Amino acid sequence: MAVNFTVFEDFAVVKGVRLGVAQAGVRKKDRDDMVIFELAEGTEVAGVFTTNAFCAAPVHICRRNLEKASPRYLLINTGNANAGTGPKGFKNAELSCEMLAKATGVSPEQVLPFSTGVIGEPLNMEAFERGIPAALENLTEANWARAGRGIMTTDTLPKGYSKQIEIDGKTVTITGLSKGAGMIMPNMATMLGFIATDAKIPAAVMQGWARKLADKSFNRITIDGDTSTNDSCMLMATGQSGVVVDDSEEGSKAGEAVFTALEEVFRVLAQAIVRDGEGATKFVTIDVENAASQREALDVAYTVAHSPLVKTALYASDANWGRILAAVGRSGVQNFDLDKVQIYLDDVQIVEDGGRCDSYTEEKGAAVLAQSEFTIRIQLGRGDVNERLWTCDLSHDYVSINADYRS
Amino acid sequence: MAVNFTVFEDFAVVKGVRLGVAQAGVRKKDRDDMVIFELAEGTEVAGVFTTNAFCAAPVHICRRNLEKASPRYLLINTGNANAGTGPKGFKNAELSCEMLAKATGVSPEQVLPFSTGVIGEPLNMEAFERGIPAALENLTEANWARAGRGIMTTDTLPKGYSKQIEIDGKTVTITGLSKGAGMIMPNMATMLGFIATDAKIPAAVMQGWARKLADKSFNRITIDGDTSTNDSCMLMATGQSGVVVDDSEEGSKAGEAVFTALEEVFRVLAQAIVRDGEGATKFVTIDVENAASQREALDVAYTVAHSPLVKTALYASDANWGRILAAVGRSGVQNFDLDKVQIYLDDVQIVEDGGRCDSYTEEKGAAVLAQSEFTIRIQLGRGDVNERLWTCDLSHDYVSINADYRS
Repeated sequence: MAVNFTVFEDFAVVKGVRLGVAQAGVRKKDRDDMVIFELAEGTEVAGVFTTNAFCAAPVHICRRNLEKASPRYLLINTGNANAGTGPKGFKNAELSCEMLAKATGVSPEQVLPFSTGVIGEPLNMEAFERGIPAALENLTEANWARAGRGIMTTDTLPKGYSKQIEIDGKTVTITGLSKGAGMIMPNMATMLGFIATDAKIPAAVMQGWARKLADKSFNRITIDGDTSTNDSCMLMATGQSGVVVDDSEEGSKAGEAVFTALEEVFRVLAQAIVRDGEGATKFVTIDVENAASQREALDVAYTVAHSPLVKTALYASDANWGRILAAVGRSGVQNFDLDKVQIYLDDVQIVEDGGRCDSYTEEKGAAVLAQSEFTIRIQLGRGDVNERLWTCDLSHDYVSINADYRS
Repeated sequence: MAVNFTVFEDFAVVKGVRLGVAQAGVRKKDRDDMVIFELAEGTEVAGVFTTNAFCAAPVHICRRNLEKASPRYLLINTGNANAGTGPKGFKNAELSCEMLAKATGVSPEQVLPFSTGVIGEPLNMEAFERGIPAALENLTEANWARAGRGIMTTDTLPKGYSKQIEIDGKTVTITGLSKGAGMIMPNMATMLGFIATDAKIPAAVMQGWARKLADKSFNRITIDGDTSTNDSCMLMATGQSGVVVDDSEEGSKAGEAVFTALEEVFRVLAQAIVRDGEGATKFVTIDVENAASQREALDVAYTVAHSPLVKTALYASDANWGRILAAVGRSGVQNFDLDKVQIYLDDVQIVEDGGRCDSYTEEKGAAVLAQSEFTIRIQLGRGDVNERLWTCDLSHDYVSINADYRS
C-alpha cells in the first residue's frame, strides 16, 4: 500500500496534448501496456535521463532524436525495458519509432520511445503492430488517468497530479504522470515522468528547467539505491494556454509562476514513487544542513537513506539513533568535526554535538517514528549547503517482492 | 545458520598468549562477556581500526596506547560498544585499562581496550570490577575456544581458526578469533579480529603486515555495507616459537612462509563473519577483473555487493543478470566501454561484450545460484587490476533480525 497517496483520477487536460492507450500485449494480455502522447505542432520538449552507463536502447534513441527534431509523439511501452538487448534492441526501438511515424505522417526522429519492464529480452514487435494503431484510435485529451495506468509495471497504483494557476486572467495547466516503485523482479526497471503544460516556454530555457526541476525531485528520491537503466523524465510545453514565458517583464513574472507550479508537480510525482516504493510503510524526508559542499551533503543523505540498518529500524519504528550516527560517520566526509553534528527526528533532537542528546528519550524517538511520515534532519556544522531527499523504509515486503516474486 | 562454517573447537595454543574469560554481567547475566589476552613480555602488536569517523572511545584509546607502549594485555567486553558516549566514554575506557593495569602491575598504556555491543549507553563499570579479577583467575593458553564464545554478540557461533607450519624443524602456530555478523539492533556493532602467532616478527614490519593482511581479508567483506564504529583487527607476535622473521636469507624465507600462513588465517576468519552474516543463506565471492584502477575495481565490486536487488536475487537463487548489469552500470566508472564487459556466475557466462550471452540460459544460471557458495566474476576490460571481496545474500531473516528483534 502506498504511503499517503491515492489513485490518480481527477486531472486537468493540457491543451495540445492528446493521449492514446492500448492493450498491445507486450508481455501480458488484457492490460493497458502502450501509451502514445501526441503533442501539438510547436510543442517544446526537454528530457533528463538515467546516468546508468548501461542505459537502454530507447534512452539512446530519445537523446538522439531530441537533438535532431521537434518531437510530435512519445511512444511508451510497459512489460519490456529493451535494455541489455544490444544492437537488436536499437533496431527495435528505431523500428517502433518508424511504425508510429508512418502511421501519423511525421518523421521517425519526431517520435521519442520509452520502454519499461524486463531487462535483456527482445522487444515483441508484433505488440507494436497491434498497439500503435489501437492507441492512435483513441487519442484524446481526456486519457490522462488511463495513461497513468498504462505505464505502470509493479506500481500498486497510478501516479499523476494536476496543477492550475491563473496568470493575467489566463489559466495555465500542468498535468503529469510518473511510474516506478524500484527495480523489481523480473527486472521491472525504470522511473518514468511525463509532465506537460500549456504554457509557452522558449526552447532555450526548456532543458535548463527540466534539469533544475528533476534535480529537486526525481533526482532526490531513492528506494533501494538501484538506478535503473531506463529512467527518463520529460517536460513538455505546448504553449496553447496563451501564457508566454519570455524575457519581458510580464513574461518573466509568468515564468516564475509557471516554474514554481512545475516544481510542485515534479515534487509530488517524484514523492509518489517513494510513497509507492516496494514494501514501503514509511515516507521519510532526509534533510542534511550546513554542509561544506553539495557533494558531501548528498553523500551523507544517501548513505543514511541507503543504510539497510537505518531502513530496517525505520520499518520497526525503532529510533535506533546509533545506526543513523554510524551511517553519517561512514559517509566519507573529510576532516569531520563530529562535535558539531546535530541530528533530529522531526523536532526531537537525538544527537547533540556528536553525542547522544541529554534530553532524548526512547519514547520521544519512538513517537516520531510511529508516524507514517517524518523527517531525519542532520546538521553537519561545516558550511551553508543544504540538501533534501526522500526515501522509504526496508520491510519484509521489499524482500518478498524482490525475492519471492518468481518462486 | 552460518554458511559452511562450523563451531570453533579445535585450536592450537600460541606460546606466550594466555586467555582469561569471565561472566562480568556487562549487559546480560550468565554469559561469558569479558575476555583478557595476556601477552608475554616482548610480544609485538599491530592493529587496524575502523574508518568510521564516529569511532568508539576504546578505538581511540587503542590507537593512542599502541603508540605509547608495548601492550601486555587486551581487554575485551561484549554487550556494550562504548560508542557515541562522549567524554564519559573515554574516561570509562581509560578506567577499565587502569583497573586491569593495577591488578597486573603493568602501566595503563600497556592495556588495549575493545568493546562491542550497544551504541550510546554508558559502560557498566561494576561489570569490570567483577569481570577483570575473574578473568585473570582463569588465564590459560587453552582458553581460545571459550574466548571465541566470550566475544560473540549476535554471532550464531564462535569463529576461530588455527594454522601450524614447520620451518627448519620448528613449529610456528597461528591462532585467531573473529566476531561480527553485521550491526544489529540494539546496535550490536563491531567486527573484531584477534590473531596471534609465536613467530618473532620485527616491530618495523608488524604494522605493514597487519594492514596488508586486513586489506585482503577483513577489509574485503561486506554484509550490509554498514561500517561499524568499533571495528578492530589485531595482529600479535610473541616470538616464542624460536622462528625469527628478519632480513637474513633464512629470516626472509621464514617471513614468506609465516606471512602466507597468516593470510590464510585472516581470510578464513574474515570469511567466517560473512558466512555467519545476518540472515545469510549464500556465501558469495565477487571478483572484479581487468579494472583500470583499484578504486574502480572496488567501486564495481561494492556496488554489486551492496545492491539490495542483487542480494535479494541471490537469496531467491534467481540468476537475475539484469540486476548485476544495472549495478555495474551505476558504479560510477568513467568512460565505461560496455562492449568490453563480461560477467560470469562461476563458469557460466551471463553477459558477453555488454549484452546477454547467447549461450546463456536461465537454467544454467539457476544451477549456479542453487549452490550455497559461488562466484560472480565481472571483467571490465579496462586494465590489469583485480579485486576480490566476499558478501552474502539479503533474506527475510536479515529484516527480521534487524527490524523485529525488539518488537
